[in-house]
Amino acid sequence: MAEILAALRSLMASHSPPLDALVVPSEDYHQSEYVSARDKRREFVSGFTGSAGLALITKNEARLWTDGRYFLQATQQLSDQWQLMRIGEDPAVDAWMSDNLPREAAIGVDPWCVSVDTAQRWERAFAKKQQKLVQTSTNLVDEVWKTRPPLEINPVIVHPLEFAGRSVADKLKNLREKLGNEKARGIIITALDEVAWLYNIRGTDVSYCPVVHAFAIVTLNSAFLYVDKRKVSTKVSSFMQENGIEVREYGAVSSDVALLASNQLDQDRGVSSGQNRVCEKDTSEEEENYNDLIWVDPASCCYALFSKLDADKVLLQQSPLALAKALKNPVELDGLRNAHIRDGAAVVQFLVWLDKKMQEIYGASGYFLEREGASKKRLETNKLTEVTVSDKLEEFRASKEHFRGLSFPTISSVGPNAAIIHYSPQAETCAELDPDSIYLFDSGAQYLDGTTDITRTVHFGKPSAHEKACYTAVLKGHIALGNARYPNGTNGHALDILARIPLWRYGLDYRHGTGHGIGSYLNVHEGPHLISFRPQARNVPLQASMTVTDEPGYYEDGSFGIRLENVLVIKEADTEFNFGDKGYLSFEHITWVRLS
Amino acid sequence: MAEILAALRSLMASHSPPLDALVVPSEDYHQSEYVSARDKRREFVSGFTGSAGLALITKNEARLWTDGRYFLQATQQLSDQWQLMRIGEDPAVDAWMSDNLPREAAIGVDPWCVSVDTAQRWERAFAKKQQKLVQTSTNLVDEVWKTRPPLEINPVIVHPLEFAGRSVADKLKNLREKLGNEKARGIIITALDEVAWLYNIRGTDVSYCPVVHAFAIVTLNSAFLYVDKRKVSTKVSSFMQENGIEVREYGAVSSDVALLASNQLDQDRGVSSGQNRVCEKDTSEEEENYNDLIWVDPASCCYALFSKLDADKVLLQQSPLALAKALKNPVELDGLRNAHIRDGAAVVQFLVWLDKKMQEIYGASGYFLEREGASKKRLETNKLTEVTVSDKLEEFRASKEHFRGLSFPTISSVGPNAAIIHYSPQAETCAELDPDSIYLFDSGAQYLDGTTDITRTVHFGKPSAHEKACYTAVLKGHIALGNARYPNGTNGHALDILARIPLWRYGLDYRHGTGHGIGSYLNVHEGPHLISFRPQARNVPLQASMTVTDEPGYYEDGSFGIRLENVLVIKEADTEFNFGDKGYLSFEHITWVRLS
Repeated sequence: MAEILAALRSLMASHSPPLDALVVPSEDYHQSEYVSARDKRREFVSGFTGSAGLALITKNEARLWTDGRYFLQATQQLSDQWQLMRIGEDPAVDAWMSDNLPREAAIGVDPWCVSVDTAQRWERAFAKKQQKLVQTSTNLVDEVWKTRPPLEINPVIVHPLEFAGRSVADKLKNLREKLGNEKARGIIITALDEVAWLYNIRGTDVSYCPVVHAFAIVTLNSAFLYVDKRKVSTKVSSFMQENGIEVREYGAVSSDVALLASNQLDQDRGVSSGQNRVCEKDTSEEEENYNDLIWVDPASCCYALFSKLDADKVLLQQSPLALAKALKNPVELDGLRNAHIRDGAAVVQFLVWLDKKMQEIYGASGYFLEREGASKKRLETNKLTEVTVSDKLEEFRASKEHFRGLSFPTISSVGPNAAIIHYSPQAETCAELDPDSIYLFDSGAQYLDGTTDITRTVHFGKPSAHEKACYTAVLKGHIALGNARYPNGTNGHALDILARIPLWRYGLDYRHGTGHGIGSYLNVHEGPHLISFRPQARNVPLQASMTVTDEPGYYEDGSFGIRLENVLVIKEADTEFNFGDKGYLSFEHITWVRLS
Repeated sequence: MAEILAALRSLMASHSPPLDALVVPSEDYHQSEYVSARDKRREFVSGFTGSAGLALITKNEARLWTDGRYFLQATQQLSDQWQLMRIGEDPAVDAWMSDNLPREAAIGVDPWCVSVDTAQRWERAFAKKQQKLVQTSTNLVDEVWKTRPPLEINPVIVHPLEFAGRSVADKLKNLREKLGNEKARGIIITALDEVAWLYNIRGTDVSYCPVVHAFAIVTLNSAFLYVDKRKVSTKVSSFMQENGIEVREYGAVSSDVALLASNQLDQDRGVSSGQNRVCEKDTSEEEENYNDLIWVDPASCCYALFSKLDADKVLLQQSPLALAKALKNPVELDGLRNAHIRDGAAVVQFLVWLDKKMQEIYGASGYFLEREGASKKRLETNKLTEVTVSDKLEEFRASKEHFRGLSFPTISSVGPNAAIIHYSPQAETCAELDPDSIYLFDSGAQYLDGTTDITRTVHFGKPSAHEKACYTAVLKGHIALGNARYPNGTNGHALDILARIPLWRYGLDYRHGTGHGIGSYLNVHEGPHLISFRPQARNVPLQASMTVTDEPGYYEDGSFGIRLENVLVIKEADTEFNFGDKGYLSFEHITWVRLS
């Protein structure tokens, strides 16, 4: 670790201009939450393996910002060279840099690894002391990372209509209508799941997320996919051609964005720019009828691509694909329901198996049977660990139809480990199952027809009165949220408190959000909506046919953790009245494993 | 009405520049919610008597914007010349003006009657079509208002320390510390209740609000009160002098703000500007140590005074007095508790009296006694009306110690009138009490030791199953909110849903906020906090020693209305745990009248 920091500081010093600090975000070129092994730069420099965090290296210091899910884990993983900054408690990274780095400091970042929103927020914070955000032309971490894994060359797979439910043609038509409504002539799509959703393709470039490393550009007349062509079979190539999508090399996105900026991308293909005119009607206001904006989602587009555009001609707005993808079509909803039935069966098989094993091996009184007074025993050969049981869970899932892998690293945690919200057990160091401790598992799978995510917390012996009280409070919150009815227009921030009130009664709480959208054989975490105690800048209301999880918890450091998670589908509620004619919504629980 | 509009349009046409539209806000020079009779300009031009609304007069149209509390009332009061614009349903006033008034339109407003926030928001909306906000040099409404009431000359009264709980010296010291922290050298205080609170004075210039028409300016070295000097007795004059407050004429605020802008206000009094230097320490950053900002609250300061300042030297930020006033001191809290005990006794006396009268006169089965099967009778001579019973309620209150008047116009409403959220009965037209209808009353009083506000909804006969179900849902919401515990940092927007969830279950809702702060012998509506379904731009968390009401409701147009309101004091909660070391809060109900 010390050598990595030293090597980086040496590169920072010899950089032109010399850098006072280097920011190493967690994200890849696509602002992904889960990234491939070769993109785990922040993990490489800091040793912290959590999915979210930001490293800052100055001449004398190294600091890592992460959120409440990871405070414990980061404390354990960071070496002495690193100082943990707790998001929500310590100063935010932009405020810290502005306050603590020198006047006129040069702060470097790879502009491919930072979003427009983030970079612009930092620049505003830097203005006070004339500090500068420097876009490095290479990634300094990659230069010192001698053992960086090679490029993955995994095939692009067409996601068939029987699972996708909507044709590419239909999605493109709808997208172009939205471009027209906003006077945009093109959109740059950088989020991996948006590219996969729009073009009905899937891949295996990133563990747990069935996406392909790719960009897309869609104009009113053309559509492009930027991907390593070695991943594209003849069959996929034909599919693209049928849908009017031109396949180009991954690296070409950079020069094509520049062409798009100067309105030469279409001409390049022989399409006249006059076709950008969408509406020819005369107006007395003599308003410009050409669509001349380029739509860029500032939360997902990297600063590198944005910097190639004329800022005055950019429509900085949430990608229309985020909401389109979140509103599941009937085929996707049926797929999700079916996938959850199979997944529920696998989890119940696992719980029955685990219950029997806990009784056989440890003499536990049992979770299902609650057998009283069994004598404790333990056969060393049959030891159960966090990893061996989670492997067994994966085995049950793998036996189900359409299984394609897990949707995220299984959290399988005994006792105090369950208090580490995003704990990831390692075979060598993980804990043994214990009939006297709480066992929490949070896991999910990718099936061709849907993505699953479930958390259950169980005890195979006699939980303490305190553990029972906490479990009951979490369960009450889970039920209160899951049973809510609410008018259209309500957002997840407003609902969040329902899951917390029963905990707050005792002065208890949890440091994570309450619910996230879930993909349809796509990312397990999906926006644009969220159920969170933090008000969202993008205040997207919950809408019928969205998916969302319901997962309150409670974590007692060093002792235990509790979390209960179902996946819900938002549907129209069958209310007796309809005050304000807004229409009311409620939740359909599609998770099938008992909660208590 | 038609003549008023014609006269205004004639003035608009002869104005230089000619005005395409004239905005007539509800507010006075202090952005007050309740204004004196001579300041009811919007009511004069439109005929609409509600407390909130905005009138817009164009060459051919007249439109009135108001909120959900007043939709029904406005429909009834507006003449054919006027069109009602429903806030939350119709386009907002700035969007409407921008979209519907001509390019380069001149839109007039009296800059004393509009806040900085509002004027700037309009100007941003106007930019799109090069429209202009024109500050009229006189108020055009006053020019056509021949019968405008004369100036009130009511005495300024010193609010004694036994009720105020904090000395003026202490409040000024604390205010000047806050100025220093923000590098401000002065503050312009325009909100009437902030002036009254800071200087420990009260008055009777505005019905229901014990305030004085006055401005204040406080610098690091001096303090000014701008008030009609005919209102200031020798005794009050001495009190001001003792506290280092200079009394100047009300109209002098305009020129004094200009002096303040050029840093000549203190010099004028022989105080050197060098004294603005708060901190003399050397810093390597060579930062400016002079306080050179003028603090202005953009939500309460009028555009007229702001326009006299150098915009670069203005600190546009919520007034520190808003929060200071909201955090009641122990003397104020005891006063509020005592006032509510006396007020509760008056309300219970009223309910017992009303119950007996309803039985005697109408043969009602009774609210308290629930007497079954009584025969109906009715003696014309003893007729009870919305106005006669609310007069009786006032009589019970007036008999209590420290009574100084009502805190707002009593809402006393039978059956369908109760669905008009801010209904105000008139003696000539009001409804008669009815043993078969719901009766809702929302009322409060000013006592020297505190302000009260309570709503109860009763029925003296047999409510329908639907009325009972609605009442129960409202009561559940009231209880859920009133019993909540929550960590420090939680704001009223987050809590609001607790009061709505039981109604939403049936598809019911209400179109108003759930709670507001209440003054200590001051305004019945007081910020800066609020319990509302709308996220607040000023996201002030609830804090211990604030007051807030808990008043969900349900209103069925043409049938009935239900609202249940208590006043709560926020206190530290006695929770078993204290997760996150934030401290948890809960409510103390200080209203003493049974709810069911």
